[in-house]
Amino acid sequence: MTVNLSYFQIAAVVIAFTAFMFAAWLFRWVKKRPSSNKRIAEVGGFIRKGARTFLKKEYQTLAKFAAVAAVVIFIFLPKPVWSDKADILRNIEMVIAYLGGTVFSAVAGVIGIEIATIANVKSAEAAKEGIRPSFLAGFRGGAVMGMAVVGSSLLGIVLVWAITGDATVTLGFSFGASSLALFAKAGGGIFTKTADISADLVGKVELGIPEDDPRNPAVIADNVGDNVGDVAGMGADLFDSNVASMAAALVMAATLPNKSLNIALVFAYAGIGLLSSIIGVGCARMGKKGSPTRALNNSTYITTVIFAVLSAAVTAVFDFSAIGNHGEWRIWGASSIGLFVGVIIGIASDYFTNDNKKPVRRVAKAAESGPAFTILSGFSYGMLSALPSMIGIGVSALAAYKLCEPIGEGYAFFGIAMAAVGMLSIVGMIISNDAYGPIVDNARGLAEMGNLGDDVLDVTDQLDSAGNTVKAITKGFAIGAAGLTVISLLGAFMSEVNGVADLANKITGFDIMNPMVFFGLLVGAAVPAVFSAMLILGVDRNAQRMVAEIHRQFKEIIGLKEGKEGVTPEYDKCINIATTGALKELIPAGVVAISITLVVGFVGGVQAVGGFITGNIVSGLLLSLLMSNAGGLWDNAKKYVESGHNGGKGSEAHKSAVVGDTVGDPFKDTAGPSINTQITVVSLVSSLFATLFLEFNLFNLF
Amino acid sequence: MTVNLSYFQIAAVVIAFTAFMFAAWLFRWVKKRPSSNKRIAEVGGFIRKGARTFLKKEYQTLAKFAAVAAVVIFIFLPKPVWSDKADILRNIEMVIAYLGGTVFSAVAGVIGIEIATIANVKSAEAAKEGIRPSFLAGFRGGAVMGMAVVGSSLLGIVLVWAITGDATVTLGFSFGASSLALFAKAGGGIFTKTADISADLVGKVELGIPEDDPRNPAVIADNVGDNVGDVAGMGADLFDSNVASMAAALVMAATLPNKSLNIALVFAYAGIGLLSSIIGVGCARMGKKGSPTRALNNSTYITTVIFAVLSAAVTAVFDFSAIGNHGEWRIWGASSIGLFVGVIIGIASDYFTNDNKKPVRRVAKAAESGPAFTILSGFSYGMLSALPSMIGIGVSALAAYKLCEPIGEGYAFFGIAMAAVGMLSIVGMIISNDAYGPIVDNARGLAEMGNLGDDVLDVTDQLDSAGNTVKAITKGFAIGAAGLTVISLLGAFMSEVNGVADLANKITGFDIMNPMVFFGLLVGAAVPAVFSAMLILGVDRNAQRMVAEIHRQFKEIIGLKEGKEGVTPEYDKCINIATTGALKELIPAGVVAISITLVVGFVGGVQAVGGFITGNIVSGLLLSLLMSNAGGLWDNAKKYVESGHNGGKGSEAHKSAVVGDTVGDPFKDTAGPSINTQITVVSLVSSLFATLFLEFNLFNLF
Repeated sequence: MTVNLSYFQIAAVVIAFTAFMFAAWLFRWVKKRPSSNKRIAEVGGFIRKGARTFLKKEYQTLAKFAAVAAVVIFIFLPKPVWSDKADILRNIEMVIAYLGGTVFSAVAGVIGIEIATIANVKSAEAAKEGIRPSFLAGFRGGAVMGMAVVGSSLLGIVLVWAITGDATVTLGFSFGASSLALFAKAGGGIFTKTADISADLVGKVELGIPEDDPRNPAVIADNVGDNVGDVAGMGADLFDSNVASMAAALVMAATLPNKSLNIALVFAYAGIGLLSSIIGVGCARMGKKGSPTRALNNSTYITTVIFAVLSAAVTAVFDFSAIGNHGEWRIWGASSIGLFVGVIIGIASDYFTNDNKKPVRRVAKAAESGPAFTILSGFSYGMLSALPSMIGIGVSALAAYKLCEPIGEGYAFFGIAMAAVGMLSIVGMIISNDAYGPIVDNARGLAEMGNLGDDVLDVTDQLDSAGNTVKAITKGFAIGAAGLTVISLLGAFMSEVNGVADLANKITGFDIMNPMVFFGLLVGAAVPAVFSAMLILGVDRNAQRMVAEIHRQFKEIIGLKEGKEGVTPEYDKCINIATTGALKELIPAGVVAISITLVVGFVGGVQAVGGFITGNIVSGLLLSLLMSNAGGLWDNAKKYVESGHNGGKGSEAHKSAVVGDTVGDPFKDTAGPSINTQITVVSLVSSLFATLFLEFNLFNLF
Repeated sequence: MTVNLSYFQIAAVVIAFTAFMFAAWLFRWVKKRPSSNKRIAEVGGFIRKGARTFLKKEYQTLAKFAAVAAVVIFIFLPKPVWSDKADILRNIEMVIAYLGGTVFSAVAGVIGIEIATIANVKSAEAAKEGIRPSFLAGFRGGAVMGMAVVGSSLLGIVLVWAITGDATVTLGFSFGASSLALFAKAGGGIFTKTADISADLVGKVELGIPEDDPRNPAVIADNVGDNVGDVAGMGADLFDSNVASMAAALVMAATLPNKSLNIALVFAYAGIGLLSSIIGVGCARMGKKGSPTRALNNSTYITTVIFAVLSAAVTAVFDFSAIGNHGEWRIWGASSIGLFVGVIIGIASDYFTNDNKKPVRRVAKAAESGPAFTILSGFSYGMLSALPSMIGIGVSALAAYKLCEPIGEGYAFFGIAMAAVGMLSIVGMIISNDAYGPIVDNARGLAEMGNLGDDVLDVTDQLDSAGNTVKAITKGFAIGAAGLTVISLLGAFMSEVNGVADLANKITGFDIMNPMVFFGLLVGAAVPAVFSAMLILGVDRNAQRMVAEIHRQFKEIIGLKEGKEGVTPEYDKCINIATTGALKELIPAGVVAISITLVVGFVGGVQAVGGFITGNIVSGLLLSLLMSNAGGLWDNAKKYVESGHNGGKGSEAHKSAVVGDTVGDPFKDTAGPSINTQITVVSLVSSLFATLFLEFNLFNLF
C-alpha cells in the first residue's frame, strides 16, 4: 500500500483515543470494585486529599515558572523577535506548543493520581479475597496511568505536527513536558523521601512503632509521597522521554529526503507501541499458581513481541521502498535493537537489585559488620552495575547508526533516534508496571491501618515485593531509554544549529580535540553531580524540618504516643511541610542546571554546548545508574535481612541495613531518576537556544 | 643567549643531582636528630620492618608483572617484530625504558620509605622539645621523598631522551612509572585502609581502647600503611604524573618545527620547577608563633612565585625567538596558567574539607541525626566539590590552547601539555608537604605508644592535624595535575596515531557524532567506576580477613586484652594479611582496566579509543574529586566532633561521624587517588598500542 502521511497521523490519533477509552474502562472497572472498611476509606481519603494538595501547589508553582518561560520563549525562540528573520507567528506557535506540553503532561498526572488513590483502597480491600483480585486492582489502576500518559503524549506530538508541520515547534512541546517533569519528578522525589525518611526515623527507629502506624503524623505524607513521587513523577518522566524521543526523530526526519515516509515511520512505530501496550495490559493476569512478578514481566515480554511483529507487518504492507536501499527495514531493525537492548538493560539492573542474586546477599552479609561496610559494598555494586547498561546503550547507538548509515546522508543519526523510539515504544506497559508499585505499597499501608489482619498483610506484602523487583527493571529501562533519547537530542541539537547557520558556520560534529568541546565536556560532566547533590541536600534539610514537626506533635498532642482512642495526629501539617519544602528545594537545582547551560552556550558557543551535552549525558547516565541501582540494592538487602536472614529484624545487621536503605532512598527515588529529566531539560534548552548561541557568544568576539 | 639543547639537558641533570645531594643532606640531618626512648625505637623498628616487607613483596609481584609486560612490549612495541617497518633495536629500547621507569620510581619509593620510618621516630622524640623541632624533623623527612621523586623522574626522562632522542620511547619510560604507580598507589591504598579500618573496628569500636594502643595486633600494620600508602603510594603517583606530563610534552614537541627549542623549554621548566622546590623546602620553617599549616602553605606559595620568576627569566635571557610570534612567552603563559589553576584547585578542595568552613560543620551537625544523614550530606558535598575543579581544569586547558594556538599548527595542544608541566613544576614541594602528613601521623602513634605524656601528644596532634589540612590541598593539586596531564596524553595519542598512519588514515580529531567515539565515551566513563568498586570491595574483603585475625589473637593470646606486661600481639601476621591481600585484590582491578582498553581498541579502532580515553578522563576526574573530597570531609568532620563539638566523643554524633570516616577511608586513600593512576595507565596503553589498533580492529573488517 502506498504511504499517506495523513492516514498515519489519523491512525495514531485513533490509537491514542483507543488508549483513552481503554483507560476510562479500566478506571470504571477499578472504581466499581467493592470497598467497605470505614477506616480504610477514611485514610484513603486523607491520602487523596494530600496528593491533590501537593499537585495543586506544584502546578501553581509550575504555572509561574511556565509563565516566565513562555515570555522568554516568545521573545527569543525560535528566533529573537527583533531579528530580520523572525516570524512572530512561529514564536507564538512555540509558546502554545510549550504550554501544551506542560498541560498534556499535567492532565495525565492528575488522572494518574486520581486513579492511584482509588486503586490503593480497592487493592487493599480486594486482598481479603486473595492475591489475584488484589493484584488486578493494583495493576489496572497503574495501567490507567500508563494509557493516559502514552495516549496524551502521542496525541500531543501528532497534533503539534499536524497543525504546524514544524519540527522545531515539537521541541517546544517537548520542552514543556520536560519543565513539568522537572517539577513532578524532582519535586515529587524530594516530597516522597522527606516523608519516608522522617516517618521511619521517628517511627521505626526512635519509637519502635511499626511502619504505617496511624499514630505517626508523617504516615499519610509517606503514602501521599508514593503517589506524587512514584506515580505522578515517574509518569511525567516517561512522558518527557517519550515525547523527546519522538521530537528528536521528527527534527532529524524533517531534514531527510522522503521526509513524509520517515515521519510516517515515526508515527507508525509510536502508535504500534501504544497498541501493543494496550494488548499487553489487557492480557495481564496472574495464573492460579503464578507469582505477581512473573505476571508483570510476562506482560512486558508479550508487549515486546507484539510490537516487533506488528511493526514488521506495517513495514512490509506499506510501500516505503522510496526510502531506498531497504531503508525501511534498516530503520525497523534500529528500533528493534533499541527495544531489545532496553530489555537487556532491565535484566542487568535486576541482577544487581534482586535478592536472589549475589550482590544483595553480599551486602546483607556485609551489614553484619556495621553500617560502613553496608554503604561501601552497596556503593561498589552500584558502580559496577553501570558498566553493562552503558555498554548496552553504546552498542545499541552504534548498531543503529551503522545499520542506517547506508541509507543515505543524515540517516545514521535518525537510526539512533528510531532506536530510542523503539526502546520507548512499550512505555505504556512500563508505566503500568511502574505505577502498580506505589499503588500496592499504599494498599499494604491501608491494610495495616485498617487492621485487616495478618493473612491480608501477607498478600499485600507479596504484591509490594513484586512491585519492588519490577521497579528495578522499569527503572533500568527508563534510564536506558533516556540515554538513547538524549543521544538523539544531541543529533537534534546539531540539526538545529545547521538549520540556521550560514554555510560557513555549518558544523559537522564536535571534535574532542577542540578545547571548547573539551571544556564543555568537563563542565557538563559536573552538572548532574551538582544537581543531584542539591536535591539530596534538599531532602536532608526538608526531613529535618519534618522530624522537628513530628517531635512537636508527639510532645504536644496528649495521648498520641499511647494511641488513645479518638486522638489523631495533624497529618496536614506534615503534608504541608513536605510540599512547601519540596518546591523550595527543587527550584535552585533546576535554575542552576539551566543557568550553567546558558553560561556555557553564551561563553563558548555551540561547540562548547555540544561537549557540554555530551559530558552531561555520560556522567548523568553513570550517576543515575549508580544511584538507582545502589538504592534498589540497599532497599532489597534490608528486606532480605527483615525476612530473617543474617540475624533478622532487630539484629545489628538489620540496623546497618536500615542505614543503607535510608541512604539509598534519596539516591533511588529523588536524585537518580531526576537526572534523566535534568539531562533532557539541558539538551532541549541547548537545542532551543542554538540560534542564539551561534550568534551571541563571548568566544565569537575574539 | 642562543639555545643549545645539550646545555639545557646538562642543566636539568645538574639540578637533579643537586636535588639528590640536598636529599642526602636532609637525610643525614634527620638521622642525626637525637632519640632515646627504647619503646619508640622498638616500635619504630617494627614499622620499618613491616614497610620493608610490604615493599619487597610488592616489588616481587611487580617484577613478575613487569617481566610479562616487557615481553609484550618487546614483541609489539612500538611496532610488531614481524612487521616490515619494525626496528628490533627500537623495541629493545622500549623494553629498557619501560623497565627503567619502574626501577627509577621504585628506588625513589625505597628512599622515601627509609627516611619516613626514621623521621617518624625523630619527630616523635623532638616533640618533647616543642613543636618547631618536631615539625622540622617531619617536614625534612618528607622533603627527602620529594627531592628523590622529582630528581629521579627528571633525570630518567632526560637520560631516555638524551640516549634515544625518541619521544615514543619516553612514553615507554612513562608506562613503566605508571605500572609501578598502579601497584604502589592502589596496592598501598588497599593495604593502608585494610589495616586502618580493621584496627579501628576492633580496637576503638568493639573494645573501646584508644587509637594506636600497642595491644592492638593491627596497630603496627596501621602505621606501616601510612608509610606504604601515603608516602610510597603518593610518591609513585606523582612520579607517574610528572613523568607523563613531560613525556606527553616531548611527544608533541617532537612533531613541531623548531623541535629543539620546544624541547629545551620542557627541560628548562621542569628543571626550574625542581630548583624552586629545593629553595622552597630550604626556606620552610615555622615562625615562633606560627602554625604548621601556615608554614607548609607558605613554602608552597614561595615555590610558586620562585618558579614564575625564574622561568620568566630563562625565557627572557635565552633566545627562543625562532619559535616565532612570541611563542616562548605564550608557552610560558600556558605553564603559568597551569600552576596558577593548580593552586586554585587546591584552595577549592580545602574549602570542602577544612573544619573552619561550612561543609564540614554541616556534616558534623548532620551526624547528630544519625549515620545515614552523615553519609548523604558528605556525599552531596563531595559531588558539589567536583564543579570548581572541573571548571578549573577545563578553563586552564582552554586558556593554554588558545594562548598557544597562534604560534602555529600543533602548538595549541603543546600549550596544554606545558600547562600540565607548569602545574607539576612544583611537585617536589607538593610531595614534601604530602609525605610530611604520614610521618607526623606515625609520630603521633609512636608518642602514644612510648608514653611521652599529654603535652607531647598535644604537639603531635597539632602537627597531625596540619598534615590532614594540607593533604586536601595537595590531593586536589594532584588530581588537577593528573587531569591536565591526561588531556595532553590524549594529544599524545593522536600524535602517535598520526605518526604511523598513512596519509589516508591520518586523523584530525575525535568527533562525538561518530558513534564509535560515542561508544568509547560511554564505556570509558564506566571504567573508573568499575576500577574503584573493585578496589573498595577488595578493602572490604581484606579487612574482614584481618578482623578475623585480630579476634583470633585476642582470644588465643592470654593476657593480651588485659595488657599484661611482656605480652605482645603477633604484629607480623596482620602485616602479612594486609600485604598478601592488597596485592591479590589489586591485580584483577588493573587487569580489567587494561583489558577493556585493549578490547575497545581492537574492536572499535582508534576512534573508539579516543572516545574511551576521554570518557575515562571525564568520569575519572569526577569520581576521584568526589571520593577524595568526601573522604577528607568525613575525616575532618569526625575530628571536629571529637574536639568537643556536636556532642563530642562518645555521643551519637560521634558514632555517626565514625561511620562517615570509615566509608571515607577507602574513598580518599584507596579508590579516589588510584583513579589518577588508572587513567594514566589506560592513556599510555592506548598510545603505545596505537599502531596496532590502527592496523588490527574488528571494525576495519567491515
